[in-house]
Amino acid sequence: MSIDTTFGSDNHSGVHPRVLEAIAAANQGPAVAYGMDPYTEAAVARFRAHFGADADVYLVFNGTGANVVSIATLARPYQAVICSEHAHINADECGAPEAGTGCKLLAVHAADGKLSPELVGRHLQGRLDQHRVQPAVVSITQASELGTVYTVDEVRALAAFCHGNGLFLHMDGARLANAAAALGLDLGEASRGAGVDILSFGGTKNGLLLGEAVVSFRPELSRDTILIRKQKIQLASKMRFAAAQLSALLSDDLWLENASHANRMARRLEEKVRQVPAVRVVQPVQANAVFASLPRPAREKLLQKYFFYTWDEEKCEVRWMCSWNTTEKQVDDFAAEIARCCK
Amino acid sequence: MSIDTTFGSDNHSGVHPRVLEAIAAANQGPAVAYGMDPYTEAAVARFRAHFGADADVYLVFNGTGANVVSIATLARPYQAVICSEHAHINADECGAPEAGTGCKLLAVHAADGKLSPELVGRHLQGRLDQHRVQPAVVSITQASELGTVYTVDEVRALAAFCHGNGLFLHMDGARLANAAAALGLDLGEASRGAGVDILSFGGTKNGLLLGEAVVSFRPELSRDTILIRKQKIQLASKMRFAAAQLSALLSDDLWLENASHANRMARRLEEKVRQVPAVRVVQPVQANAVFASLPRPAREKLLQKYFFYTWDEEKCEVRWMCSWNTTEKQVDDFAAEIARCCK
Amino acid sequence: MSIDTTFGSDNHSGVHPRVLEAIAAANQGPAVAYGMDPYTEAAVARFRAHFGADADVYLVFNGTGANVVSIATLARPYQAVICSEHAHINADECGAPEAGTGCKLLAVHAADGKLSPELVGRHLQGRLDQHRVQPAVVSITQASELGTVYTVDEVRALAAFCHGNGLFLHMDGARLANAAAALGLDLGEASRGAGVDILSFGGTKNGLLLGEAVVSFRPELSRDTILIRKQKIQLASKMRFAAAQLSALLSDDLWLENASHANRMARRLEEKVRQVPAVRVVQPVQANAVFASLPRPAREKLLQKYFFYTWDEEKCEVRWMCSWNTTEKQVDDFAAEIARCCK
Amino acid sequence: MSIDTTFGSDNHSGVHPRVLEAIAAANQGPAVAYGMDPYTEAAVARFRAHFGADADVYLVFNGTGANVVSIATLARPYQAVICSEHAHINADECGAPEAGTGCKLLAVHAADGKLSPELVGRHLQGRLDQHRVQPAVVSITQASELGTVYTVDEVRALAAFCHGNGLFLHMDGARLANAAAALGLDLGEASRGAGVDILSFGGTKNGLLLGEAVVSFRPELSRDTILIRKQKIQLASKMRFAAAQLSALLSDDLWLENASHANRMARRLEEKVRQVPAVRVVQPVQANAVFASLPRPAREKLLQKYFFYTWDEEKCEVRWMCSWNTTEKQVDDFAAEIARCCK
Repeated sequence: MSIDTTFGSDNHSGVHPRVLEAIAAANQGPAVAYGMDPYTEAAVARFRAHFGADADVYLVFNGTGANVVSIATLARPYQAVICSEHAHINADECGAPEAGTGCKLLAVHAADGKLSPELVGRHLQGRLDQHRVQPAVVSITQASELGTVYTVDEVRALAAFCHGNGLFLHMDGARLANAAAALGLDLGEASRGAGVDILSFGGTKNGLLLGEAVVSFRPELSRDTILIRKQKIQLASKMRFAAAQLSALLSDDLWLENASHANRMARRLEEKVRQVPAVRVVQPVQANAVFASLPRPAREKLLQKYFFYTWDEEKCEVRWMCSWNTTEKQVDDFAAEIARCCK
Repeated sequence: MSIDTTFGSDNHSGVHPRVLEAIAAANQGPAVAYGMDPYTEAAVARFRAHFGADADVYLVFNGTGANVVSIATLARPYQAVICSEHAHINADECGAPEAGTGCKLLAVHAADGKLSPELVGRHLQGRLDQHRVQPAVVSITQASELGTVYTVDEVRALAAFCHGNGLFLHMDGARLANAAAALGLDLGEASRGAGVDILSFGGTKNGLLLGEAVVSFRPELSRDTILIRKQKIQLASKMRFAAAQLSALLSDDLWLENASHANRMARRLEEKVRQVPAVRVVQPVQANAVFASLPRPAREKLLQKYFFYTWDEEKCEVRWMCSWNTTEKQVDDFAAEIARCCK
Repeated sequence: MSIDTTFGSDNHSGVHPRVLEAIAAANQGPAVAYGMDPYTEAAVARFRAHFGADADVYLVFNGTGANVVSIATLARPYQAVICSEHAHINADECGAPEAGTGCKLLAVHAADGKLSPELVGRHLQGRLDQHRVQPAVVSITQASELGTVYTVDEVRALAAFCHGNGLFLHMDGARLANAAAALGLDLGEASRGAGVDILSFGGTKNGLLLGEAVVSFRPELSRDTILIRKQKIQLASKMRFAAAQLSALLSDDLWLENASHANRMARRLEEKVRQVPAVRVVQPVQANAVFASLPRPAREKLLQKYFFYTWDEEKCEVRWMCSWNTTEKQVDDFAAEIARCCK
Repeated sequence: MSIDTTFGSDNHSGVHPRVLEAIAAANQGPAVAYGMDPYTEAAVARFRAHFGADADVYLVFNGTGANVVSIATLARPYQAVICSEHAHINADECGAPEAGTGCKLLAVHAADGKLSPELVGRHLQGRLDQHRVQPAVVSITQASELGTVYTVDEVRALAAFCHGNGLFLHMDGARLANAAAALGLDLGEASRGAGVDILSFGGTKNGLLLGEAVVSFRPELSRDTILIRKQKIQLASKMRFAAAQLSALLSDDLWLENASHANRMARRLEEKVRQVPAVRVVQPVQANAVFASLPRPAREKLLQKYFFYTWDEEKCEVRWMCSWNTTEKQVDDFAAEIARCCK
C-alpha cells in the first residue's frame, strides 16, 4: 500500500536525519559484534546518564522483544503478568509473551488504558492457591495504547502497591519519550523515579530506523538478561548500528524534540477536530494520538485519502497518530479533510 | 573492545556503501509498517527473481530468527531436528531453537561440519516409538560453520534421503552467498535447485546492517509463517529499511561481488599461511573462513594485535574469517604477522 | 485437613467398589507397559462402544492433562483458545495450557459459565491480522464449572458456528457424565452427536481413583496425539490400571448410576436450601453442584463443621458439590446445618 | 500384546499386595483433594524419615513428571542440563524436558551409562558466552539405564564437582531402591548423603500401581515447586491414593525387599547366561537388568516366547529386566530357553 500522508502510526514515519547520520558515522572500520563494541558502550553510557549509573541496559530489536525479555527477566512460567486488556503485550504481540515466557497474562478492563491499584488488586485473590498462576509482574504502558499518560503520582501509587504486594512493575515505554515530554519530566524521572523496576525503552516510534532497549533498575534481578536476550532472539550481531541510533536519540535532547513535536501535532489535530460537530474525541489527548469517533460514511470517505486504523469497529472509533515528522500543514490538511468528509 | 583490523567474524565488518545508500533512499516520506510497504514488495520480488516466482518470503531480524521461524514452520514440539553438533542452531543460539519451538535437536558429530545421509540415518531408529521425539527436519548450514561447502550433489543426496524418509530439509544459509559463489551457482540453484525445502537466507554477514529472510519453497507449508514470525519476535515495524538493504544485496550481483571477494581473501590467506610451517590448515578452505592450528605461544602473540576466535582450545585451533571488505593488504599484513609470531 | 463429610468437591470422594475390584482384577500377571496391554485395548473398545468405532482414544492422568493434550492436538502456538473466564483451563490449571501449548486463552465473561456463538464471535475480529493470535479452538465445559449444563441444541449451535468459522470445538468433559445424565442422553449423543471435535473425558470425579481420556472424533487430526500425550507427561507406564477403571466406569451403566446419583443429591440439597430464606441459589442446579449465597456469619459457622469452597468472596457465594457417594442423610444433615447457621 | 512372562521391563509387573491393600485402606470416607489430606501428610512424613526432616516432597504421576518438575525447579530456560546420552530424560521422554522447561540437554557419551566429573567438564567451556546455554544442572540416573550403579564415592565426586562449578546435581532415581539395595545403603545415604540436590524418587517400577516424587534437599530452592508441579500437569486430585502407596513402599522395608529381590533375580539370570557361550554380558550387572548380546537368530527364537527389548540393533544387544515379582523359576526357565535358542 502506497501512501503519501499517514496518520496511521508513528511507525510509518522514517528515520530522523541525525539518526541516519549516526548510522553512517558508525560505519567506520570493523567493530566486534554482539555488543562488544565502543558504540554500544557509548549508548549504554547515554542510557546511564538518563536512567542512573547502575541501570542495566540491553539493546534489542523491537518493542515486543523488549517486553518479552523484560517479563522473562522478572517472572517464571508459573507466574502471571497483570496488564490492561488494551496492552500491546495482550492485544498486539500474537501471543509472544505467553509463548516466549510461559507466563499467563491477566488482562484487566481499563477504559482509558491505564491500570490502577484497585484494578490490579482484583487479580490477587488466587495467591497461594496452587491451581492459580501467581501474579509476579504488573505491566503498564506509558504513554498508553489509548494515547493517555499516567501521572507520576499514578505510577508511584502503582509501584507502591506492587512492591507492597510482592509484585514487580514493568513499564512498556514504547512511547515513554512522548509521556515524559507531556509530563515535563526527564526520562529517568518518568520511569525509575516513579518506582518502575524494569523498562522497555522505545526508540523506533520516535525517529529511529530500529532500536529499543530493556533497562533494568534492579540489576540484581537482571544478571541473566544477557542470556535471555539471546534466547529470545533479540541479540543483533552488528549492534553498533542500533547503538549509534540510540545514542543519537539520547543526545542533545533529540528524544524530547521529536516527542514534543509529535505531541504538539496531536493536540493541534485535537483542537481542530473538536470543532467538527460530528467528531467526538473519546480519550484525553495526552501524548501523540487522537482517538475519536465519527460517522461511518465519513470514515469511509476519509479512508480513501488517508491511512489510519479503526480501533473499535462497533463504535466507529478510530486512532489518528502523529509522529516526529508530522507537519502542521499535514495536520491542517487532514483536519480540513475530516471536516469535509463529515459534512 | 576497540579493533582496527579483525579476522574475528564477517559480522565485524560494516555496511556496504550501496546498502547504506539504499537505506537513505528508502527514507522518503511515510510507509506503512510491518511489511505492507512498496520496499518490502520490491524485496520480495527480488527474492522471487532469484528463488522462483512462488517462493514464500518473510524478512526477519537475524539468523537465529530465520532458523527458529523456519523450524517452527516445519516441525511441531514433539518432533526433532537433526543437525551437526557444530550447527549454529545447536552451538550458538543459546537454546533458542529448543525454547522457541519445543523441538529437540539431535546433534551428529561431523568432522567437517557437513551432514550426510548416513549420519542422518543414525537418528531414525526411534521412529514410531512414542517415547522418542520424531525427526521431522534435517538442518544443514551452507557454507558450514567450519568453512566447508556442500557440493550440489551432496545437498541433493541429503534432500533425496530426507524426502524419502518423510523429513524436510532446512538450509541455514547465513553464508549461502559464499557457498554459491564458491560453487559457481546462482542462489536458487544452490538451495531450491538442490532440493532444499526452506532456507534461512543471510544478508548481515555479507554487507548489510541487518536483514535476513525465511524463504520457503513449500508455500503450502508456510501459510502461517507470517504469524510464526510475529510470535517469534521477528517482525520489524519499519520493515522498509531491511527490505531496501536486501533488495540492494540481491541487485546487480552485489551478493556475488561481496561473497566472492570474501572467499578470495580467505584463499589468499590460506595460501600464505600454508607457507608457515608451524601453521596447519585443518579444514578445506571453501568459503570465507580459514580454520588452522598454530602453536599456543604464537596465538597469544597474534592476539595482541588481532582479534579472532579460538575454535578448539585443546587443539589450539582458531578461526580466521574474511569479509566483503577485507583488503589484500590486510590479508598480507596478517599473514606476515602470523609468520612472525610463529617464528 | 481431616474431614468427615464434605461438600467441597467430587474429587474428595473415594473410589467406587466396582472400580477397586477392577483394579485388583487387573493385577494378574505381567502386562506390557505404556498401553500395549489387553486392558487398555478393552478400555478403548468400551470408549468406542460409547463414542463410535473410529473414536481415537488416549488415556491420560488427569483433567488438565486431557485438556492440554486436546488443545495441543488442535492448535499451534500462534493460535488461541476461546473459553469462558470460569473455564478450568483458564482459572484452575496454573497456566498449564499456555505454558504447555504456547497458545493464548481468550477468556469471555459468561455469567452462567456457558459460551454462545455471540460471545465467541466477539473474539473473531482480529483474524488475518498478524499481530493477533488466531483463534483455532473453542473450549466449553460440560457440565460447566458453575454447575450449569448446555442443552444439545446449545452445543450444536456452537459447533455449527465453530465449523462455519474454521474453529474446532473442544469439550472439557470432566463432568460429561453428570451432564449426559441430566440431559437423558448417552455419552456419545452428548458430545460427538452434538458436533464436538475432541473431548476431555473425565472419570476421576465420577468414582475412579484416577483416569481420564482424550477422545478425538477427528482421527485425521489426532494422528500425533500419541506423541503429544507422552511429551505433555500424560503417559502412564502401568496403564492397565487406569484402563481397568475406565472400563468399569463405562460398563453396566456405572457412569450413569454414579452421575445420576450425584445430580439427584444436588437437586435434593437445592430443594432444601431454597426453603432457607437467607440462602439464595445463584445458578440453575443442572448437574451436581449448588452455587448459593448466604450471609457471611452463617458461612463462617458452617465452615466449622463442613468443608466447601467460596466462589466469590465479595458476594459470599459458595459452591456445594455432591458426589457419587453423597448420601441422602448427608444432604439432609447438611441442609439442616445450613438452616441452623442462617438463623 | 498378551504375555505370560516378561523380562521386558519392571513396568510390566503388577502391584504388590501390600500396596493394593494400602489403596483399599485409603478408600475410607472423603479426603480433601490435591494433597491436603492425612494420607499425603503421612507419606511426606515417611519420606522425611528416609531423607531428612527438611526434605521438601512433591508427589507426582510418573518419572518423566518427576524429572521435568525437578529440572524446572533448578534451571531456567536459558540454562542446560548435562546428562548421559542414554539418560531417560534424553532418550525416552519424547522431548518433554526441553518442551517443558525450555532447557537444552547436553548429552555426553558414557559407555556404561554413568557420568564422571571429567565427562561433565567437557560441557563447561562455553560459560559466560551469551551464545551458549549455560549448564546449571547435572542429571545422573541411579541405577543407570544400563543397569550399572554409581558408588557413593562416584556420586560424591560428581556432587563436589558440581557444587564447585556452580551446578546442581539431580538424581533420576526411578530405580534408586535397586541402587541403594545393591550398595547396602539406605535411601537417604544413597542420595542426599552423597550430595544430591534434588531427587526423582521412583515407586512405580518397584511395585506400585503409580507414584513417584520429587524430593528436594534444597528446600530454599523448591519453594515454588508446588506451582511447577501443577503447571507441568503432575498434581493428582485424589492424591491420597498415590500417597498411600508410597507410604506402604517406604514402610517395613518394602522398598528394600522388592528391590533386593529384583536385583537378586538379575544376578541369578546373569550367572546362568554366563554359562551360555553364545551370550555375552555387556554391562556389569549391578541392579535389576542384564544387558547381553546374543546371536541374532537366537534372539528371534527367544522373542517368540518372551517379551524383551533390543537396546542396540546393530550389535544385537538386548535388555533383560527383572522385577520385584520375578520368580526363581521364571529366571531358570528363561535361562534354559536362552540356552536352547543359542544352540
